[in-house]
Amino acid sequence: MTVRFGVLGAGRIGQVHAKAIASVDGAALVAVADPVAAAAASVQDKYGCDIRSIEQILASEDIDAVIVCTPTNTHADLIESFVKAGKAVFCEKPVDLDVARARQVIETVAAENGRLMVGFQRRFDPDFRALKAAIDDGAIGAVEMITLTSRDPGAPPAEYIKSSGGIFRDMTIHDFDVARWLLAEEVETVMAQASVLTDPGIADLGDYDSVNVILRTASGKQCTITNTRRATYGYDQRIEVHGSGGSVSAMNHREANIEVANGAGYTRPPLLNFFMTRYTAAYAAEIAAFVAAVKTGSAMPTTGLDGLRALELADAALQSARTGQAVQLGAARAAA
Amino acid sequence: MTVRFGVLGAGRIGQVHAKAIASVDGAALVAVADPVAAAAASVQDKYGCDIRSIEQILASEDIDAVIVCTPTNTHADLIESFVKAGKAVFCEKPVDLDVARARQVIETVAAENGRLMVGFQRRFDPDFRALKAAIDDGAIGAVEMITLTSRDPGAPPAEYIKSSGGIFRDMTIHDFDVARWLLAEEVETVMAQASVLTDPGIADLGDYDSVNVILRTASGKQCTITNTRRATYGYDQRIEVHGSGGSVSAMNHREANIEVANGAGYTRPPLLNFFMTRYTAAYAAEIAAFVAAVKTGSAMPTTGLDGLRALELADAALQSARTGQAVQLGAARAAA
Amino acid sequence: MTVRFGVLGAGRIGQVHAKAIASVDGAALVAVADPVAAAAASVQDKYGCDIRSIEQILASEDIDAVIVCTPTNTHADLIESFVKAGKAVFCEKPVDLDVARARQVIETVAAENGRLMVGFQRRFDPDFRALKAAIDDGAIGAVEMITLTSRDPGAPPAEYIKSSGGIFRDMTIHDFDVARWLLAEEVETVMAQASVLTDPGIADLGDYDSVNVILRTASGKQCTITNTRRATYGYDQRIEVHGSGGSVSAMNHREANIEVANGAGYTRPPLLNFFMTRYTAAYAAEIAAFVAAVKTGSAMPTTGLDGLRALELADAALQSARTGQAVQLGAARAAA
Amino acid sequence: MTVRFGVLGAGRIGQVHAKAIASVDGAALVAVADPVAAAAASVQDKYGCDIRSIEQILASEDIDAVIVCTPTNTHADLIESFVKAGKAVFCEKPVDLDVARARQVIETVAAENGRLMVGFQRRFDPDFRALKAAIDDGAIGAVEMITLTSRDPGAPPAEYIKSSGGIFRDMTIHDFDVARWLLAEEVETVMAQASVLTDPGIADLGDYDSVNVILRTASGKQCTITNTRRATYGYDQRIEVHGSGGSVSAMNHREANIEVANGAGYTRPPLLNFFMTRYTAAYAAEIAAFVAAVKTGSAMPTTGLDGLRALELADAALQSARTGQAVQLGAARAAA
Repeated sequence: MTVRFGVLGAGRIGQVHAKAIASVDGAALVAVADPVAAAAASVQDKYGCDIRSIEQILASEDIDAVIVCTPTNTHADLIESFVKAGKAVFCEKPVDLDVARARQVIETVAAENGRLMVGFQRRFDPDFRALKAAIDDGAIGAVEMITLTSRDPGAPPAEYIKSSGGIFRDMTIHDFDVARWLLAEEVETVMAQASVLTDPGIADLGDYDSVNVILRTASGKQCTITNTRRATYGYDQRIEVHGSGGSVSAMNHREANIEVANGAGYTRPPLLNFFMTRYTAAYAAEIAAFVAAVKTGSAMPTTGLDGLRALELADAALQSARTGQAVQLGAARAAA
Repeated sequence: MTVRFGVLGAGRIGQVHAKAIASVDGAALVAVADPVAAAAASVQDKYGCDIRSIEQILASEDIDAVIVCTPTNTHADLIESFVKAGKAVFCEKPVDLDVARARQVIETVAAENGRLMVGFQRRFDPDFRALKAAIDDGAIGAVEMITLTSRDPGAPPAEYIKSSGGIFRDMTIHDFDVARWLLAEEVETVMAQASVLTDPGIADLGDYDSVNVILRTASGKQCTITNTRRATYGYDQRIEVHGSGGSVSAMNHREANIEVANGAGYTRPPLLNFFMTRYTAAYAAEIAAFVAAVKTGSAMPTTGLDGLRALELADAALQSARTGQAVQLGAARAAA
Repeated sequence: MTVRFGVLGAGRIGQVHAKAIASVDGAALVAVADPVAAAAASVQDKYGCDIRSIEQILASEDIDAVIVCTPTNTHADLIESFVKAGKAVFCEKPVDLDVARARQVIETVAAENGRLMVGFQRRFDPDFRALKAAIDDGAIGAVEMITLTSRDPGAPPAEYIKSSGGIFRDMTIHDFDVARWLLAEEVETVMAQASVLTDPGIADLGDYDSVNVILRTASGKQCTITNTRRATYGYDQRIEVHGSGGSVSAMNHREANIEVANGAGYTRPPLLNFFMTRYTAAYAAEIAAFVAAVKTGSAMPTTGLDGLRALELADAALQSARTGQAVQLGAARAAA
Repeated sequence: MTVRFGVLGAGRIGQVHAKAIASVDGAALVAVADPVAAAAASVQDKYGCDIRSIEQILASEDIDAVIVCTPTNTHADLIESFVKAGKAVFCEKPVDLDVARARQVIETVAAENGRLMVGFQRRFDPDFRALKAAIDDGAIGAVEMITLTSRDPGAPPAEYIKSSGGIFRDMTIHDFDVARWLLAEEVETVMAQASVLTDPGIADLGDYDSVNVILRTASGKQCTITNTRRATYGYDQRIEVHGSGGSVSAMNHREANIEVANGAGYTRPPLLNFFMTRYTAAYAAEIAAFVAAVKTGSAMPTTGLDGLRALELADAALQSARTGQAVQLGAARAAA
């Protein structure tokens, strides 16, 4: 069986997923949709697929699955439509910036017995998987304290920030998902601090650029997250998990594995500077996992509920940063 | 001029300081005091000094300075007595576990125009000084976000914990001082989470073994501190300072700089396992700095006020961990 | 223009090159030839190309270029035939195990004004290219001393060793090429030592498994090469170039960029264990470079002469190891 | 029992040893001798010892052992005199630059039943000892191939080079000793290449500044040594031992364990720049080992024979570099 794909949205991330489909055994790219003709044409040129409208793809009998790479505010509706049409759906995070709407979508998917995977590519990064495997193999005993460090090379444009939902929902949300994955226990309490340190313009947009978060589970496990929107040395992505028997860390990826020594010292190149370059392997592995789940009917590796839980943490962190109080997730979930 | 020393307390740390005095040019160890005769004798044997009582040292005209290495609950009284007697005083942290009493001592020292240095040896560690020098030289631009990771190999005995004032006042206090030193701006807000993960017996003593803290200054700079009482791989002491122009990190110290490669991978030895071994150079440099300040009359590099500020942060962190609310230091200082 | 390819030989390396062709823009795989029907079929299945005989490919008007991945003893004849047929030829090293025959081939290619690239993939490895770029950018001043460390995870089968020409012509030859590339000056003198340390069976085949070589150029630059056929920690591939102004090194590639710390120390995973995995990017870049040279008519990045020079060094090293005398390449070239 | 010392020669290395004596339990510095009054006085000032002439020390009944830090051409005579006087002798390498004279001295020491330790401090470096311990503990199986990299920050003055015996006898000799220590089997064959690359003035003195050596034992174990007189990044001292079961490496020592990251990459400080700073711990441990051997009467850890064997390797390497032929040590020893 080959899973036949439609890709909705031929922007940057749509192109990444189109490439992944082309490289995965048992997957075929049948059609792409994008209101920008040139974008759709570039996918067609590279992979020889059709160009169709979203509506045509929805109605296509030769399409088994879609990848939703359209703007965030279209995600919820598209998921619902395509699930109702019996297609498997891979949707970029988030399901929706509004928790209540995200819950609705999850309920719809469940009611339709639909298949939905929400894209949290970091879980599929080979290094992070090796780290997770080491934990699961008992290399560090019981997980106790996690430190996640994520720093962007630079802030996105103001236009993007305006509709991003803010740093917690746009950037930290990936760390929230990694935290949940590694803690293997739901978070009960969220504390956060947030500042604007790199660009006053970000404050004008009502957003932050420098945040620290402490998550805590019912059993007392803790996770700290450090985010900034500016790192001069590249895209900084590190995980450190401390356990009863030891610790395991995942290191950064550099432009090249070389080192120059001279009177100034020993210098290695900066980090890979772009999330798509850093996570190339993760994006491919994520689509392969989706294809495998569609083929075998097994559980999706990351679900709509994962998307919702990460979003709840983002909302709680924002609230904590604003109020200076720890937010209890049970209460937050009930109130939402 | 030679600074003539009395050492009060010939325990573990007293012996470290006696050795430092012996190795510093322009310092001489004249006398040691300890109620345990064998402890005092061992210092006398090694360095050829007198054994005297604390009272005798207080009255000794051939003593210019003392190092206070006695139990914490004697620090405040000894500082006051020796400052009044015109001696320069180096006192191990803390001045007192009670903020109000610590303030009294600082006032007494000021009123007597006395000389008091409080021992925060980490500021004198050669690596940390190189890190600080890199910051001061502009290598990373303006300081924005600091990450301090301190993990003890194992918890101290229950007896010690009982009188320690708790993990924030006993262990994290060193990180609070490092944070103040590197932030170069007073902390305004403290958030903390605290758990017991390594040994339920620590909960029985009313203490914690695993804590995370977020500090924030008025200008929005932040510092996270991660502490645990158990690290199977040794005494873990790391600093990472992120700034507008880059980042600087200080790495751990290992038992040896070797690496073995085989089918299991590439293995370097564990870390130095004991704070006195890890900070050997720092302890010596700290005493050298004290001697230099006594000789030249210049400002003490770490003062009673530094001790007080770190203690205030410890109290605030404990309060935040208990209440789940951020603590405003202005308010905490006023209330204390 | 698209370069239309025939691949001669569908074994392990033939499959690697077929994949590279598929991924390079402006290249198309038209046909594969292999006496083993299943091997040819597996390439056809993956890439949708024809299966033809070598003779058919030679006569095919829709083939512009071939990749020679057949056994070593067929290389010389195939290069000559295909060059005479006007095809561009990419041939895996070596051109021939016999220096005299290799010279003949090079002369034929020149006489036919043919296009021949000999596969030395290491020159196309991204890390090694970054190292070379650092040298070319003046990061280390003038090159003086090079250290090449190449260790295989394990020896090839006895059958392979028998027809390999021996360790110098089979394994060290890659280091000889890297040495020539980085020295940027021809080698004049070769000294070598060779032992059998990992498996007495290798001695029975008249070969060695552990060798060290010193190369020296006319201006006195030197390069040492260390090879062994057994490294328990994976495929060890390192370059260190020391110059008048500094040094530059290329590091190994690991299975994952993680590190586990516990009472046994800090352990990173072993190295990638297989040359095809380690040099995946290099194999793709090598074919891309060949395609570019074919398209533009520019000089081949690695030529038949490069293959010959490396082979001469291998012969000289073997002679030095056997006689215990330095071999002068001028003399060796004249005698050959 | 306290070992009472005389130090012959109060130059740079004499001062290092005087300091080591002061810090070793069970050792006392009684007297120093130096024709330069200021040099002797500076040792007296620091350690409170007598100043005596060499003849007086020879006749002193309150001296048990001497440390010979005088110019190389006085070593042989001083060793013989002091051994005949019943003193234990620690002598800096070499015993003599002439192999025949060195043999005589060793015979004299044997005939007198004397105690002689020749200073090869690297064997006492804590990292190198940890490396040796890993080998002895079986961490890498049987030793097969060793790579020694030693690079000086800069060449010594011409005056020094003139009387040094040349780079092999002055610099590589330390690597020859380390090679013998780690191979644990005598070297049978020596091959060497030598160039002048850093300063033509060194060629004018008949010396080299850039050398590579391959050593080979009877069982086929090999060791390569790389030396240069110029490394812009500091004093480069590395060992890598490859064995049947794995590999073990000793890493360099830096000025500080910090790393700065910015747009230029990740930079660690240069290496310690001076052999005395790099080997501070080794020099102290070496004297401690000498004191222990004197006290207990146990075998000296490094003997006159070790000095002779290293010198023989130096002579053989020089001969190989000059003749372009491998030198057989059996023959060289017989001819000497």
